[in-house]
Amino acid sequence: MSRLELGEGSLYDLIIVGGASAGLTAALYSSKQGLKTLLVTKDLGGQALLTNEIQNYPGHENIGGFELMSKFEDQAKSHGAEIVYDEVVEIIRRDDFCFRVKTPTKSFQSCAIVLAFGKTPRDLGVPGEQDMKGRGVSYCAICDGSLFKDRKVAVVGLADPALDAALLLSNIASRVYVIHSLDRLVGSYETLEALKTKDNVEFIPNSTVLRINGSMKVESLTILNSKTREEKEMRVEGIFIELGYIAKTDFVKDLVQLNSRKEIIANKDGSTSQPGVFAAGDVTDAPYKQVVISAGQGAIAALSAYNYLQRLKGRPAIRGDWKTAVKKS
Amino acid sequence: MSRLELGEGSLYDLIIVGGASAGLTAALYSSKQGLKTLLVTKDLGGQALLTNEIQNYPGHENIGGFELMSKFEDQAKSHGAEIVYDEVVEIIRRDDFCFRVKTPTKSFQSCAIVLAFGKTPRDLGVPGEQDMKGRGVSYCAICDGSLFKDRKVAVVGLADPALDAALLLSNIASRVYVIHSLDRLVGSYETLEALKTKDNVEFIPNSTVLRINGSMKVESLTILNSKTREEKEMRVEGIFIELGYIAKTDFVKDLVQLNSRKEIIANKDGSTSQPGVFAAGDVTDAPYKQVVISAGQGAIAALSAYNYLQRLKGRPAIRGDWKTAVKKS
Repeated sequence: MSRLELGEGSLYDLIIVGGASAGLTAALYSSKQGLKTLLVTKDLGGQALLTNEIQNYPGHENIGGFELMSKFEDQAKSHGAEIVYDEVVEIIRRDDFCFRVKTPTKSFQSCAIVLAFGKTPRDLGVPGEQDMKGRGVSYCAICDGSLFKDRKVAVVGLADPALDAALLLSNIASRVYVIHSLDRLVGSYETLEALKTKDNVEFIPNSTVLRINGSMKVESLTILNSKTREEKEMRVEGIFIELGYIAKTDFVKDLVQLNSRKEIIANKDGSTSQPGVFAAGDVTDAPYKQVVISAGQGAIAALSAYNYLQRLKGRPAIRGDWKTAVKKS
Repeated sequence: MSRLELGEGSLYDLIIVGGASAGLTAALYSSKQGLKTLLVTKDLGGQALLTNEIQNYPGHENIGGFELMSKFEDQAKSHGAEIVYDEVVEIIRRDDFCFRVKTPTKSFQSCAIVLAFGKTPRDLGVPGEQDMKGRGVSYCAICDGSLFKDRKVAVVGLADPALDAALLLSNIASRVYVIHSLDRLVGSYETLEALKTKDNVEFIPNSTVLRINGSMKVESLTILNSKTREEKEMRVEGIFIELGYIAKTDFVKDLVQLNSRKEIIANKDGSTSQPGVFAAGDVTDAPYKQVVISAGQGAIAALSAYNYLQRLKGRPAIRGDWKTAVKKS
């Protein structure tokens, strides 16, 4: 599977961190150029999975997020990219300018890296949340909603993402509590009107979650009313946290330069402040978050990584022109 | 069809110049955002049409260039983009910061522009070439080769593009002359070996074309041998010019800043030196020329144009985050 099995870990030409549209496209381009490519990711597909119908990916009039990401994955694999399902916790630059990529239990090596791990849902930051992720604590109503048929659930958040989740869950769960910190609802008129017709949706204003309670799985929430200062316990089996997305880049903050939103600063050719490290997609400071934009940036990062590795070996870089690159494909 | 029919020409929100992957994706995004969108182009598909099989467009394992570009076109049209087949010859910035886009016979107006007209084959620059374009003078063996079954043709150029064209034409034409200016062949070993097995391919070294002769269509070439200084006439019915691609940006050189290769300098958000004018794809200084990269840049340019128009009207710009934008789609 890999060229070397040393203490330093298996050796690759390029390691890609992240498995959504940017990372999978980088893997496709990298493996097609003949690079020994490893993609390390916690899961495949990223935020594209959150939509049932993508209409703005050119080449597919209407396609589900899961189906489109599966196609990306198949193409990357068919050209030889390896995928390991694990979380990268550390990337160390060695004295020879190459890198060691570590997960909690494994280690891999390469001289070029593409960071494409997207954005991650923002945590609520209360006791019980980390312990019960996947056991009643969810950040994706479309992904996990069906697990809560005829059960009581809560949605925490403000504005459209929370309202959309509540609307979706109202068709599945027996009861949906929408816990929000303001005294009035904020969101699109259309969604608010639709929610008004739902008998099983209850809004809990002026409230914040203090604790998520349960032993093996979520059993209840402790919430605080900020006006009355009253605490109360609310029995639910699921809590959907809808607080937006952040770039979880702390583990690379000493490796590459970040902006004030903790996004990786990437140049037009995908390069970062660290030679040999490239970045693509939502984790970067790119202006818009779209499948086709992330895919394009994944291709750019992979070709720039290829050129970087060629120059390391004293070989000519790839020509940028279209016809040659298409022919090579 | 258009909101206004004035002397200044029909009014649009956004006019896109160019109809290949960048322009068509810009049209898809622009029309999906509700902008009244016009795409003006000489032809559809651009250089993607030059390949029979694209393997590196994520979402399609194997697809012909024509088929993929037809899908792009259908999507753009289905969301309301209008397409006019014509050549833009001038773009004038008016005093109100909006633009007039002129073709030889028509005029259109908009306050935002996306330039995405790609690169154009380099001309040979000899008498007869302009007059007989499409009447024996071709820049695309894949597109036009089949018109020359059992006829004599010449290929002018060096290196792989010319050799690839010669190899393709050797299976169609009765005789293929490869006219090149050096005394030895340059190109990939594989293609050179394949050409050696072809009895109907003849190399004409140390030679340049002086004139393309014919009345209604190509009848012969006058070529000069640079060593012997001898001129001779060679009877052919077709000449394939393979001299690479250039950005034909002279008509916008006073509008937007160009680099030394005459490519339009585009920022990460697709903006150029001219407010309201955005650029995407091969016509820009982007590092690599690939369908998915151009498509991503087309989406970026369209969303930036949308934001620009919103700000002109004092309205909030679109949020860049993925989920919202996917939902709007």
